[in-house]
Amino acid sequence: MTYEEIWEKAREVMAPNCKACPVCDGKACRGKIPGVGGIGSGRSFTVCREYLDSIRVLMDVIYEPGEIDTSLELFGRRFDIPFFLAPLGGMNGNYNGALTEEEFNRAAVEGMAASGGFAFTPDSPGDAVFRAALPYIKAAGGLGVPTVKPWETEKLLGRIREAREAGAMAVACDVDSCGNLNLKRAGMPVFPMSPDTLARIVKTAGVPFIPKGVMTAASAVRCADAGCYGVVVSSHGGRVLDDSPAPCSMLPEIRAAVGDRLKIFVDGGVRTGMDVFKCLALGADAVLIGRPYAVAAHGGGAEGVRVYTRKVLDELRDVMLMTGCRTLSDITPDKIRLG
Amino acid sequence: MTYEEIWEKAREVMAPNCKACPVCDGKACRGKIPGVGGIGSGRSFTVCREYLDSIRVLMDVIYEPGEIDTSLELFGRRFDIPFFLAPLGGMNGNYNGALTEEEFNRAAVEGMAASGGFAFTPDSPGDAVFRAALPYIKAAGGLGVPTVKPWETEKLLGRIREAREAGAMAVACDVDSCGNLNLKRAGMPVFPMSPDTLARIVKTAGVPFIPKGVMTAASAVRCADAGCYGVVVSSHGGRVLDDSPAPCSMLPEIRAAVGDRLKIFVDGGVRTGMDVFKCLALGADAVLIGRPYAVAAHGGGAEGVRVYTRKVLDELRDVMLMTGCRTLSDITPDKIRLG
Amino acid sequence: MTYEEIWEKAREVMAPNCKACPVCDGKACRGKIPGVGGIGSGRSFTVCREYLDSIRVLMDVIYEPGEIDTSLELFGRRFDIPFFLAPLGGMNGNYNGALTEEEFNRAAVEGMAASGGFAFTPDSPGDAVFRAALPYIKAAGGLGVPTVKPWETEKLLGRIREAREAGAMAVACDVDSCGNLNLKRAGMPVFPMSPDTLARIVKTAGVPFIPKGVMTAASAVRCADAGCYGVVVSSHGGRVLDDSPAPCSMLPEIRAAVGDRLKIFVDGGVRTGMDVFKCLALGADAVLIGRPYAVAAHGGGAEGVRVYTRKVLDELRDVMLMTGCRTLSDITPDKIRLG
Amino acid sequence: MTYEEIWEKAREVMAPNCKACPVCDGKACRGKIPGVGGIGSGRSFTVCREYLDSIRVLMDVIYEPGEIDTSLELFGRRFDIPFFLAPLGGMNGNYNGALTEEEFNRAAVEGMAASGGFAFTPDSPGDAVFRAALPYIKAAGGLGVPTVKPWETEKLLGRIREAREAGAMAVACDVDSCGNLNLKRAGMPVFPMSPDTLARIVKTAGVPFIPKGVMTAASAVRCADAGCYGVVVSSHGGRVLDDSPAPCSMLPEIRAAVGDRLKIFVDGGVRTGMDVFKCLALGADAVLIGRPYAVAAHGGGAEGVRVYTRKVLDELRDVMLMTGCRTLSDITPDKIRLG
Repeated sequence: MTYEEIWEKAREVMAPNCKACPVCDGKACRGKIPGVGGIGSGRSFTVCREYLDSIRVLMDVIYEPGEIDTSLELFGRRFDIPFFLAPLGGMNGNYNGALTEEEFNRAAVEGMAASGGFAFTPDSPGDAVFRAALPYIKAAGGLGVPTVKPWETEKLLGRIREAREAGAMAVACDVDSCGNLNLKRAGMPVFPMSPDTLARIVKTAGVPFIPKGVMTAASAVRCADAGCYGVVVSSHGGRVLDDSPAPCSMLPEIRAAVGDRLKIFVDGGVRTGMDVFKCLALGADAVLIGRPYAVAAHGGGAEGVRVYTRKVLDELRDVMLMTGCRTLSDITPDKIRLG
Repeated sequence: MTYEEIWEKAREVMAPNCKACPVCDGKACRGKIPGVGGIGSGRSFTVCREYLDSIRVLMDVIYEPGEIDTSLELFGRRFDIPFFLAPLGGMNGNYNGALTEEEFNRAAVEGMAASGGFAFTPDSPGDAVFRAALPYIKAAGGLGVPTVKPWETEKLLGRIREAREAGAMAVACDVDSCGNLNLKRAGMPVFPMSPDTLARIVKTAGVPFIPKGVMTAASAVRCADAGCYGVVVSSHGGRVLDDSPAPCSMLPEIRAAVGDRLKIFVDGGVRTGMDVFKCLALGADAVLIGRPYAVAAHGGGAEGVRVYTRKVLDELRDVMLMTGCRTLSDITPDKIRLG
Repeated sequence: MTYEEIWEKAREVMAPNCKACPVCDGKACRGKIPGVGGIGSGRSFTVCREYLDSIRVLMDVIYEPGEIDTSLELFGRRFDIPFFLAPLGGMNGNYNGALTEEEFNRAAVEGMAASGGFAFTPDSPGDAVFRAALPYIKAAGGLGVPTVKPWETEKLLGRIREAREAGAMAVACDVDSCGNLNLKRAGMPVFPMSPDTLARIVKTAGVPFIPKGVMTAASAVRCADAGCYGVVVSSHGGRVLDDSPAPCSMLPEIRAAVGDRLKIFVDGGVRTGMDVFKCLALGADAVLIGRPYAVAAHGGGAEGVRVYTRKVLDELRDVMLMTGCRTLSDITPDKIRLG
Repeated sequence: MTYEEIWEKAREVMAPNCKACPVCDGKACRGKIPGVGGIGSGRSFTVCREYLDSIRVLMDVIYEPGEIDTSLELFGRRFDIPFFLAPLGGMNGNYNGALTEEEFNRAAVEGMAASGGFAFTPDSPGDAVFRAALPYIKAAGGLGVPTVKPWETEKLLGRIREAREAGAMAVACDVDSCGNLNLKRAGMPVFPMSPDTLARIVKTAGVPFIPKGVMTAASAVRCADAGCYGVVVSSHGGRVLDDSPAPCSMLPEIRAAVGDRLKIFVDGGVRTGMDVFKCLALGADAVLIGRPYAVAAHGGGAEGVRVYTRKVLDELRDVMLMTGCRTLSDITPDKIRLG
């Protein structure tokens, strides 16, 4: 299957919830929740692409050529690529139910493992969604990061235990789901994350713990103080608070505040290897990609995930070639210009 | 009644003067005076929404959760909400006469009192409009702020006396009406406010006095020097001077100039709880909302006012939840980023 | 006649060269030379309105009221208004010939004199256009500023002598016509203005001399050093060099460079009293208005000029009322904010 | 032939690959490679015109007039004009084959030589394209700069030898072609340029050597250190890396870094004499023009090249006249304002 065939197929099976647009920028689905859009005015989603598009990249081809290496170390393992599949749930509520949660999670975990990366997997009201991914993560040797909602502490710790028992190499928690309307409606209490609770979770988790939904330097410092392995700088795809800035726009000050105390992941509007490059230059260690992987999985299952991953990797390597970056650590802030 | 029903109903009864647009931004009514538009090019109105929309809000959900408190103290009383109904007159001239001044003022005063807030009430040529609100304010235990035009001093003091006798907890004066064309046409002289006169009014008013229509730090300092209780930073809905900036854009320098010598109210394009949050972060103590309350009253009377108030309050609480603000004093400038 | 009637009439008689647009912004006539447009891309014209529109004006109505005085002193005389009619020629070439040069100059000089101001009058190949205005200026007691092209020096001095003999109170020279294509085509040599020649002209002119078409601080300083009475900061209506900035945008640095050594006039996109106010706040002593006066004269002759002048004056007075400016010297840079 | 006739004719013969648009700005051909568009989003092309259009030029006509001299010295020779024809290949692949490489190169070399300038000539897979220009350069007394691809070193040195033997006065190398997809597809290995290799090439070339495709100060310094004669600041017409800035926007910092150690050429969106002026003011010594010369050659052969060159020269002279620049060295940064 080619990228074009996968997107064409996805357009058929995802209608009308997602249009698998040529550029996935949050305009066609503006304000559609449930659905795949951004909340309210939709600006928290659309601003992501506007910000990424405004960044210029500086070509530099006068350098000693050599092999390009896109690998990085996380959780004591080495990965071939610096971008991963973001946690995506609600196949029935937000998408149109063409894939079950099981089918999607299998495509996500297996497709990413076969690509030299891994998937973050989702949580939701009820246990089924969270558990859907665990067997695939176990089968993949722990390659996967289950992502739990900010439930009350005991339930949250229970979820972490399940993940650890499945061999998951780390656990994330999308703390910004405390404003998620779907969860409110389902009567499942979720909460902001107290720094004390966070420290307790980190201490008892037994695996690296990564809060997702950090947008300020102050929040990131609290996560570092609590002993977290990393954070995901994220506005939850623009779905939990209107008028958020592009997460990647916050990277420079977050990196300046935490130095190398945390691994910094980021998501929000990332579509291409060029976008991955820009996020790394802004200060991220690695990048999460959401909606395009949903399209890839709907259009081609695990193979769709592999094909799209390959496309993004090829793009990233092309940009690295043209900017004199042989390793990810060469992708420094001076490689870009803010608009 | 739901918000949607109220707006739908308002669209019927307010045509053609006001279209109760999905986003009330001054475009459909540009330049319509009499009517509900901004003066001249209409930019003094449209710039308000453009400025508010350009502000980004920083999510922060790593904090100790707790009850959210949106209350504040004004005039020695405690209110549940930090946003109030702006003075709106001209039901016949600017609106289409579907509501009488009495009907509108009743909906305004009663609806706001029932919502834990209060209404500013209007003045106009003739005594009828000014007096229309007073019985309702009296019945509500003084919950209401009659707003007088900048008449010659004795007439102005007479109006204040009437308001005080009705038990009104404070009086405002929209000093920027000195440029109002309707008043000019009606042959009723209005004037810029001399600082000496202002000091005399404050001294004799017997209730807190609040000039409305202050756009510069220098003006605000003059009001503080004259002993005013507060000011309303306002461009009169963009109706008295073309090419004014968004009032909220002036808040940081006005706050810096007056510190806590004045309570600072602001209006101009505020539509949602997100907008209220942004205004408070910019330096306001409280916010006035105008045109949307006119729509709410036309579409649902006092109940319309309550339903819309509830909507804005819910939105404000959601933003506070997602930004780590438990009280209004937590809504500080670092919670936002200017565009 | 009302302003609306005048513009309506002008639309009939000026077609197709000028459309007397609701806002005269250089878009409908972009690139039309001969005609009334800006040169090339037309940006030197359109940027004028974009810049003026981007300026915000700060309302301030807490002040001691009093009479508003819009008068200023120039050439030892006192004028009621700080805006004047710019030199406009080519009634046949650029406009459609509905008015003869004589008819236009009569309307210009008489209309402005009756309004408490004066007109700059034009020059062109041949002597007829230049001489058309002189009898009217003489009859008006010298109220008028003939504006000569930058001919070779002896011809230029001859023109000045004629103007002086007609009693003209001053003479201007649109030095930027050295790039005018119409003059090139007519085989009439025009030249950049040598500083030495300029000093010689000033010395022998016998009347105040004002170069028009100065866009830099360095140029203005050269004019001051040569003894000029003033300069007109102008890009010739955007008709002689593409991609010029808005003349008024250069005022702050030009004023800073020359202090009060020169009277500074400015033109470029000025349409309303609000625009006049902004230009004065940016540093001008007085303002020239071009195309709208052409429309006014075509639509109503001298009366059209008077009616439009009255409209602009009323607008200026309204802005002064709302910003606490009682005299022109109160219109200082702090009254505006650059966009 | 007039400019208009040439463009009209080109529109016929170049369809559908190039539309010879009124303003060649990369919009109609966005993303068309093969074809004449920019890569990917097309922004690396479109940003060039947006940046050039955003620059304002400061009129200054108070100066001592005199002859305008647009000549400059390069390679020990004197040229009448400071803009040259950029290397353009792929007449069959990118254009529609209406001209053979021979026909185009002849028009380019002869047309530019007859205009007091010279052409850069192209390279491509196979030897035919590179060699097509050499006889014409030889016949023109060496007026031409063959531009080689960044092949492996021995092949590259062979190309330089051929150019030198044809008497070419200099050789360029579009080092940014290391990312060119057409070459990848043709199985011809191209590489980033190692600084050591660059120094070796410069030492053995026997003619001045000019890397083309330098976008950073650091790259330019490496070229200076390697002994290059100059560099072409270029993003290859926006065809090799998406999201590049406008090359001319990088000129100030590149000039600051290398001083006069290098001759600095620039290309990217240059269409008019106004654009040439802006590039020189930004810090370039000379300018390359690409696509418009392709249109000129398709529409009129060598005469088309001459007519377009004359047009650009006339425009440049007009701008110099209106800005007080009598020689190219007068075109300094203070003549422009960045947007």
